Amino acid sequence: MIFGARPVRRLVRVGSVPVGGGAPVSVQSMTKTDTRDVAATVAQIHQLTEAGCDIVRLAVPDLAAARALGAIKAEITLPLVADIHFNHRLALEAIRQGVDKIRLNPGNLRKPEYVSEVARRAGEAGVAIRVGVNAGSLPPESRARYEAEHGPAEATARAMLDAAKEQIALLEAEGFHDIVVSAKAFDVPATVRAYQLIAAACDYPLHIGITEAGLPPAGTVRSAVGLGLLLAGGLGDTLRVSLPTDPVEEVRVGRAILGALNLRRRGLTLVVCPTCGRCEVDLRGLAERAEQRLADLDRRLHEQGREITVAIMGCVVNGPGEAREAHVGVAAGKGRGVIFSHGHPLRTVEEGQVLDTLVEEIEKVVREGSAPAPPTTS
Amino acid sequence: MIFGARPVRRLVRVGSVPVGGGAPVSVQSMTKTDTRDVAATVAQIHQLTEAGCDIVRLAVPDLAAARALGAIKAEITLPLVADIHFNHRLALEAIRQGVDKIRLNPGNLRKPEYVSEVARRAGEAGVAIRVGVNAGSLPPESRARYEAEHGPAEATARAMLDAAKEQIALLEAEGFHDIVVSAKAFDVPATVRAYQLIAAACDYPLHIGITEAGLPPAGTVRSAVGLGLLLAGGLGDTLRVSLPTDPVEEVRVGRAILGALNLRRRGLTLVVCPTCGRCEVDLRGLAERAEQRLADLDRRLHEQGREITVAIMGCVVNGPGEAREAHVGVAAGKGRGVIFSHGHPLRTVEEGQVLDTLVEEIEKVVREGSAPAPPTTS
Repeated sequence: MIFGARPVRRLVRVGSVPVGGGAPVSVQSMTKTDTRDVAATVAQIHQLTEAGCDIVRLAVPDLAAARALGAIKAEITLPLVADIHFNHRLALEAIRQGVDKIRLNPGNLRKPEYVSEVARRAGEAGVAIRVGVNAGSLPPESRARYEAEHGPAEATARAMLDAAKEQIALLEAEGFHDIVVSAKAFDVPATVRAYQLIAAACDYPLHIGITEAGLPPAGTVRSAVGLGLLLAGGLGDTLRVSLPTDPVEEVRVGRAILGALNLRRRGLTLVVCPTCGRCEVDLRGLAERAEQRLADLDRRLHEQGREITVAIMGCVVNGPGEAREAHVGVAAGKGRGVIFSHGHPLRTVEEGQVLDTLVEEIEKVVREGSAPAPPTTS
Repeated sequence: MIFGARPVRRLVRVGSVPVGGGAPVSVQSMTKTDTRDVAATVAQIHQLTEAGCDIVRLAVPDLAAARALGAIKAEITLPLVADIHFNHRLALEAIRQGVDKIRLNPGNLRKPEYVSEVARRAGEAGVAIRVGVNAGSLPPESRARYEAEHGPAEATARAMLDAAKEQIALLEAEGFHDIVVSAKAFDVPATVRAYQLIAAACDYPLHIGITEAGLPPAGTVRSAVGLGLLLAGGLGDTLRVSLPTDPVEEVRVGRAILGALNLRRRGLTLVVCPTCGRCEVDLRGLAERAEQRLADLDRRLHEQGREITVAIMGCVVNGPGEAREAHVGVAAGKGRGVIFSHGHPLRTVEEGQVLDTLVEEIEKVVREGSAPAPPTTS
């Protein structure tokens, strides 16, 4: 381990999914359907499940939405989190409806007695609570107090810590400890610093994210940089990527972040050379067709907790050697392709046969069970 | 500065662009056209220049490609790097053609006397050299020596360090010191570790990258995680993102990585809420239209070294507060939008007027010169 051991934090169960306690980092997303539309919401949750989402959160803007949660829960397998702002009665109704976790935003639920009441009911029902701090919903004066002395990013981080501590204290006063904590901002350094402070101040598991990160690719990059820094620093027990896209994209990006750090590499990993003036084929097209053809295999391996690394290279000379660590690969040149395994050529085939042969060799490796963790996993 | 000061490394000039010596981190890309096709290559370099690329590299697979470099150089403003593998004569011809830097891959150019000859000619011509190590092109025995004791990622890192040191020694023996070093792998932990070792072993500036990172979004994520970790750790004087896409995407992603760390934030930064079941408008569409409408402004600000943060929020209640740090923003609700500045509402307009009004207010801020660094820059 180059990035050091991950400290084990307190275990909190969100339905069937453990968060903290040494469990793998789970991936969350949030539906974008109208929560009151049960059918549409259930359909979107099924898509998220298929994509590898572990926990799903729903907006609960009103009582009708809160009352729909039970019907949604009955149709899905993922643990369900109700996202609550402003009105604690919606949290109480969500608990009655059988959700697995409540997210409370301290900036938007400031009356101590309301928080205490939610804690008591959640405690009785065995429902977890996320103290979900968001830099933007803190009262401005909470940052102002630190800003002159410490600068803006540190001030944001300290104000988020204060907000988290205040709400945690209210929950603990009710004997409630099934707490997950988050502190999200748009600014990456401020977010990283906030989690460092919170990790030092308590041992509750951490839900990590960068909020309102922006359109892809900028938002994807901002999330990957921020969450990558946190995870490599040993911080983060569950994550959510926030993108204004189909939520399935959030799950794909979240899993790719974990994959990049070898924290939870499962299914298919594609190595693709970027191509250059030496490349004589449509390599991106080939890679995209391969990805499509292998989508089912990816899901199958994913479910089995197995993985395979496949390389798509655009250079017959450099390709096999450069992708030595791939279980199977192709080095595509003009009119032909060399199919190789761990750098050793297996067969040279005509251009039209490349994709079929590649898939065939991959299926063979998978059938023979020889797709263990790749050699570079650290 | 939450991530600590960036150590200043030796300054190397690549044409007009300083690398190291405390200069801003520059963004590179590589053309994907046939280098021998001067018109196509020049056209692609112009697109890269427009996108904010600082340095461009070209494949030089043969003598015809090497001989085209002078004609290409005459038509562009960016410093030009010739990518050399196997044949040192191509490097010599590239130097004659007036390129600004040569990239040599130690794994593919192993005869010491060839490296020495390139160093002498480059030294006479004032051309920089990148020692460009790639994990995949190292001889397998170089890793094997370390693997049993140190594990695969550390072994890869040490083998890359050895290859770099060997080629650096050859260059230094010729009195050559205009050296940039890179050590790229697909594995993020191995890559980060290699740069840590190299940074400790010499003070030449570092060119950073994750090689063959894969198709977007996975390849984008892998690059952002890897380069984010390096940059936050103070490593990296120039970068290249490797994606099998239009190279303009590499530049956008590279700049976004720097932007996420506030290392080189210029032009337009878009804050976009991810939307949820509370959102009643097509926020992604609005954000994409805004991004398009503001593309020219982005370029203008970019050239002037100025920046502006604009927020596109899907919630009239939460939006303005959450995006308090944006110079200008919109909170879009059903049928109307609230245009705000630093969290304070300016005007409420009908849905059809939202985009025009937003752009108008942004142009006003820019005209009045009030687009300094945003408050959260750390």
